[in-house]
Amino acid sequence: MSSFGENTRLTIFGESHGEGIGAVLDGVPAGCRIDMDRVYAQMARRAPGKDKTATPRLEKDVPRVLSGMLDGVTTGAPIACLIENTNTRSGDYANLLEKPRPGHSDYTAFVKYGGNNDIRGGGHFSGRLTAPLVFAGAVLRQILETEGIKIAAHIESIGGVSDERFNPVCIGDELMERLSGSAFSLINTSVEEKMRAEVESARADGDSVGGVIECAVTGLPVGIGGPLFDGLEGQIAKAVFGIPAVKGVEFGAGFGSAKLRGSQNNDPFAVKDETVVTETNNCGGILGGISNGMPLVFRAAIKPTPSIAKEQKTVNLTSATDDLLAVRGRHDPCIVPRAVSVVEAAAAIAIFDLWC
Amino acid sequence: MSSFGENTRLTIFGESHGEGIGAVLDGVPAGCRIDMDRVYAQMARRAPGKDKTATPRLEKDVPRVLSGMLDGVTTGAPIACLIENTNTRSGDYANLLEKPRPGHSDYTAFVKYGGNNDIRGGGHFSGRLTAPLVFAGAVLRQILETEGIKIAAHIESIGGVSDERFNPVCIGDELMERLSGSAFSLINTSVEEKMRAEVESARADGDSVGGVIECAVTGLPVGIGGPLFDGLEGQIAKAVFGIPAVKGVEFGAGFGSAKLRGSQNNDPFAVKDETVVTETNNCGGILGGISNGMPLVFRAAIKPTPSIAKEQKTVNLTSATDDLLAVRGRHDPCIVPRAVSVVEAAAAIAIFDLWC
Amino acid sequence: MSSFGENTRLTIFGESHGEGIGAVLDGVPAGCRIDMDRVYAQMARRAPGKDKTATPRLEKDVPRVLSGMLDGVTTGAPIACLIENTNTRSGDYANLLEKPRPGHSDYTAFVKYGGNNDIRGGGHFSGRLTAPLVFAGAVLRQILETEGIKIAAHIESIGGVSDERFNPVCIGDELMERLSGSAFSLINTSVEEKMRAEVESARADGDSVGGVIECAVTGLPVGIGGPLFDGLEGQIAKAVFGIPAVKGVEFGAGFGSAKLRGSQNNDPFAVKDETVVTETNNCGGILGGISNGMPLVFRAAIKPTPSIAKEQKTVNLTSATDDLLAVRGRHDPCIVPRAVSVVEAAAAIAIFDLWC
Amino acid sequence: MSSFGENTRLTIFGESHGEGIGAVLDGVPAGCRIDMDRVYAQMARRAPGKDKTATPRLEKDVPRVLSGMLDGVTTGAPIACLIENTNTRSGDYANLLEKPRPGHSDYTAFVKYGGNNDIRGGGHFSGRLTAPLVFAGAVLRQILETEGIKIAAHIESIGGVSDERFNPVCIGDELMERLSGSAFSLINTSVEEKMRAEVESARADGDSVGGVIECAVTGLPVGIGGPLFDGLEGQIAKAVFGIPAVKGVEFGAGFGSAKLRGSQNNDPFAVKDETVVTETNNCGGILGGISNGMPLVFRAAIKPTPSIAKEQKTVNLTSATDDLLAVRGRHDPCIVPRAVSVVEAAAAIAIFDLWC
Repeated sequence: MSSFGENTRLTIFGESHGEGIGAVLDGVPAGCRIDMDRVYAQMARRAPGKDKTATPRLEKDVPRVLSGMLDGVTTGAPIACLIENTNTRSGDYANLLEKPRPGHSDYTAFVKYGGNNDIRGGGHFSGRLTAPLVFAGAVLRQILETEGIKIAAHIESIGGVSDERFNPVCIGDELMERLSGSAFSLINTSVEEKMRAEVESARADGDSVGGVIECAVTGLPVGIGGPLFDGLEGQIAKAVFGIPAVKGVEFGAGFGSAKLRGSQNNDPFAVKDETVVTETNNCGGILGGISNGMPLVFRAAIKPTPSIAKEQKTVNLTSATDDLLAVRGRHDPCIVPRAVSVVEAAAAIAIFDLWC
Repeated sequence: MSSFGENTRLTIFGESHGEGIGAVLDGVPAGCRIDMDRVYAQMARRAPGKDKTATPRLEKDVPRVLSGMLDGVTTGAPIACLIENTNTRSGDYANLLEKPRPGHSDYTAFVKYGGNNDIRGGGHFSGRLTAPLVFAGAVLRQILETEGIKIAAHIESIGGVSDERFNPVCIGDELMERLSGSAFSLINTSVEEKMRAEVESARADGDSVGGVIECAVTGLPVGIGGPLFDGLEGQIAKAVFGIPAVKGVEFGAGFGSAKLRGSQNNDPFAVKDETVVTETNNCGGILGGISNGMPLVFRAAIKPTPSIAKEQKTVNLTSATDDLLAVRGRHDPCIVPRAVSVVEAAAAIAIFDLWC
Repeated sequence: MSSFGENTRLTIFGESHGEGIGAVLDGVPAGCRIDMDRVYAQMARRAPGKDKTATPRLEKDVPRVLSGMLDGVTTGAPIACLIENTNTRSGDYANLLEKPRPGHSDYTAFVKYGGNNDIRGGGHFSGRLTAPLVFAGAVLRQILETEGIKIAAHIESIGGVSDERFNPVCIGDELMERLSGSAFSLINTSVEEKMRAEVESARADGDSVGGVIECAVTGLPVGIGGPLFDGLEGQIAKAVFGIPAVKGVEFGAGFGSAKLRGSQNNDPFAVKDETVVTETNNCGGILGGISNGMPLVFRAAIKPTPSIAKEQKTVNLTSATDDLLAVRGRHDPCIVPRAVSVVEAAAAIAIFDLWC
Repeated sequence: MSSFGENTRLTIFGESHGEGIGAVLDGVPAGCRIDMDRVYAQMARRAPGKDKTATPRLEKDVPRVLSGMLDGVTTGAPIACLIENTNTRSGDYANLLEKPRPGHSDYTAFVKYGGNNDIRGGGHFSGRLTAPLVFAGAVLRQILETEGIKIAAHIESIGGVSDERFNPVCIGDELMERLSGSAFSLINTSVEEKMRAEVESARADGDSVGGVIECAVTGLPVGIGGPLFDGLEGQIAKAVFGIPAVKGVEFGAGFGSAKLRGSQNNDPFAVKDETVVTETNNCGGILGGISNGMPLVFRAAIKPTPSIAKEQKTVNLTSATDDLLAVRGRHDPCIVPRAVSVVEAAAAIAIFDLWC
């Protein structure tokens, strides 16, 4: 199912080159005021064509709200939004029907759907389907913000160039606001130039490059989540792995904690300003699947965009023989900067579903 | 909810020191022959008390099948199993009510349940709750095996000591069978001594140590999974993060792929023996959330057991002051070896739910 | 949630006088050819304005398929359809905000949504929301028909005028086809005039009238459904009660069976043409929640349309005093004829979800 | 799935003559005090062997709570209960394997499960599986009662003998309490003798008899439920149709409303004691799928028990020929009195799931 959530359910529809893409968001409480300009701002962060790191396609991606809002306030009915598809060049994908792109869903989707899926632009597997996800996240995070819950992410690394990581015991509102409004989100903005060079270098080679996005949620009260399959980690991971290209998710110290001893990894409790806090935050704000009141911090590994101009080995499905492919068309050499707001949106949806 | 799955739903109940723990597994097809000795064998791999890496508690953990099987064959009704609790020493946990253990759910559960949760032995958050998970996985993997789908995991590392990783393009049946029957599962068994020494060193220090488990699924046909929130990665991650202590999950090259270029990370397709294969397997057998016919490979980061004998900083919830705690009782210095079969079980459940 | 189904999930969005209404149908297999003319034909049966039994509003109700179909064949991606709202006269409903219509959701929705719901035309509670339901049913029944499963309903009664009931042990394909294509669906067409007179009489009085719809599903194989909460009765009832105005659902002899003895109500088994059949069909084709191979027969009670021109007692919510209301606007004196295809659609959705 | 509910999920397991039957109830809030004597009292109302209307089997049916409660208070973990099976005589059912009982699930389950289901005593289809349902309902209704929500049902009719119906605009607490504690629940107790005679007459004939149960829920606040598939009617119907033998469910005037005009069926609003009420209650307390603050009233049709001593026509599945069958063993001539508490339990579960 292309849907997520038990209490607030997001369903995403659409194919990259079909009539349109969109989302239905059911279970949002009535009476919440939504600032559409802030929704558009989040969608703009994800939209392509802003600069050289992204594809030169100029998607408009203006979401039309079909239902669920009246005069900027939620009605309690499902919120449906539609983004019409325009500016598509299907011809670019003509030969993908028989020559699947390495690293893409072309081959697996072909087998699963018996060749009936819409291959144009990746169809329902396209990264374009993250636009309605960002729409939904942008709605829900506004409601979370009225409760003091903030979500922001940054580019932890692209290829070999790294930003600072969050200081997980202390993440100020100012930083959260700056990051969640940024088009190239960095804690240490001085690395921007070097990162852009990394992307440009890949692009110049007809290649692409991956990266890591780090996301924080602050202001989350103690007690969100639950044991076993209801845990925050599993819920967030399911949402974040729903983003095409994500191949790893870790919380707090994550894979690093596997190398530690308990005495190093355990976060000591302390009382500070009459509140229970932890002195370190290796657990990423989650104990027993439940938020502990500290910042929730996780990282998502984004693989390099599989569509590259370089010639690659593939197969011809019709003749069942080895073949070669150079992917033409307009492609991002690095989707990491655009994926920042998508990861934030996935976090918003996962948390809202457990919180509401 | 303490349940997982849409088509085949596992519900886990029980508290560590209550009457008993168990599972209900609904949606299993009728007519499947289940060898209970193989179920017991999997549960024995998880059971404590086998050697010095584990707690000296001697759980019997014999599951009693209450329904859903008749003469060793599934009836189509929900399969319920009960493991009676015996050999518990609640006294060990008496002071946890007011002094939460660092790294444990004590504090978050206390807040979430208003102090009504069963704190003894960790209650519903106890690692003991993974016993019914292994039961369920052991049932489902037998059904998967009749279709040629095999699941096996090994200890990729404990602390600083590492095993070899799977060769992700070629994992033989022999290796899969050996690993999935092993009590200390390693590809390169020559590292066992060094790993045990790492655990023993932590134990001697009144400390604990974490590790990484790598799991492979072979024989999976092309086409299992789907786009967006129905992807194999999200489904498996949700199940695996349901295991207490897991803090990271990555597929194929995982976080490593974030450092690669597309030309390095993309797995070239090739035709081999009239079958489409990939020459490398950085995608971990999953493209577009769908199995591609290659071995599915993922890794789970296991944090060090939080219960340690060393004195740690905590707080007294009654007096709202800083305090100290040395966790008494019988605890595993390293749960990684025991968690191998749990990770396999989680994979079995996740895959069965998408496959059936 | 405004959604139905576990394996094939229908989500309905929209408000009567908003931008548009529609549906997302997820989980439909790829490769199914859908004849859109047959979809339009079903929607035309539900559409208003055909004759005097219905409202003179002229809805166009042409569904635009946004995704999930390519060249008339399902792609495996969610099928989304949008029906733009046109021809609405919101002014008619202006005073409903403070004076709730008896028999309508105005009052309960006002309380539930704190006055934020879209009251115009009934908002998300409008009978107009059954248009996307018919769309979804019309898609799914075409797939069911390729497997020999047919669905048809007729007007069992309107007010005091009754049609014949189905002969539940023998329902021919010809009858099923005739009924499922009819705009005023009757087994015994000679009662049509009398029924129309019943409706016209209510209309002339500024009143409305209710009725019963009887639905049959033929060609269903033995074994669909399950025990307890997975039974065909509960699944179908949940879908059919999702239609506004339905207040009762019964299967086979239904409430009549409560008056019978077991020896009268039990359906004797017999072997006929090497197939197990029952000689009577008081169980409505369902035993133990599972189809038994006989026609599945159920009836739904439709209450009279609550919107009537006659003056009725209501309250003024602002002043908290008793008040009077005569509902202006264009309303159906009887929705039973239009609801026939809606009941068929609900049955299609419920059965498809258990069957697929 | 043998489970019900999204927010509070009940899963029922067990087979009539297996090791035991039981339930897992997940999602119950922590900190609710449950009086087990009141749970036992509800289960005693359902238990057989009390008098001549029921089977002389003497089930003990004492539920053992395995988890989720500590010192009589819910812990927040899933509540699991086990009822061990004792006093079974499997021999009675030996010939059912080849000769399915008319009106029973024997034939449909045989086909669905390929003959692997546990036929003894009806297996998972047995009416005995309603014992855990009553357990779950008895827990949840205690929590509802702390909020002033009461649930009670009575025998509306058995065969041709009828009790009074509820006065749906005014149902006093005293009546609710008397009914919900009664073993032969009647509003007008003077009909008891005549009803018992009706049952006795069927029993003497080796036959059985059906009936109708009417259930009321009082104290429900305005605003529970929702539009379309989230409506109270569909939710309750799904739960009530989960009870074996239920073949019809209607709300308020139900099928009777189909004969009325809108001006008769609409319930006029009025202000009474500063509260909005309706002067009649044909809608059964539900408008637009949402509770309106009036008593919620519904009726369930119970078919006569299919197991009768009289000889009936059936088929021999092995030889595929017509055959005869007289069901031996101990059977209820009328399950309606015992089913009263089961209907109440189903209502409790359905309402709790929407309310919590």
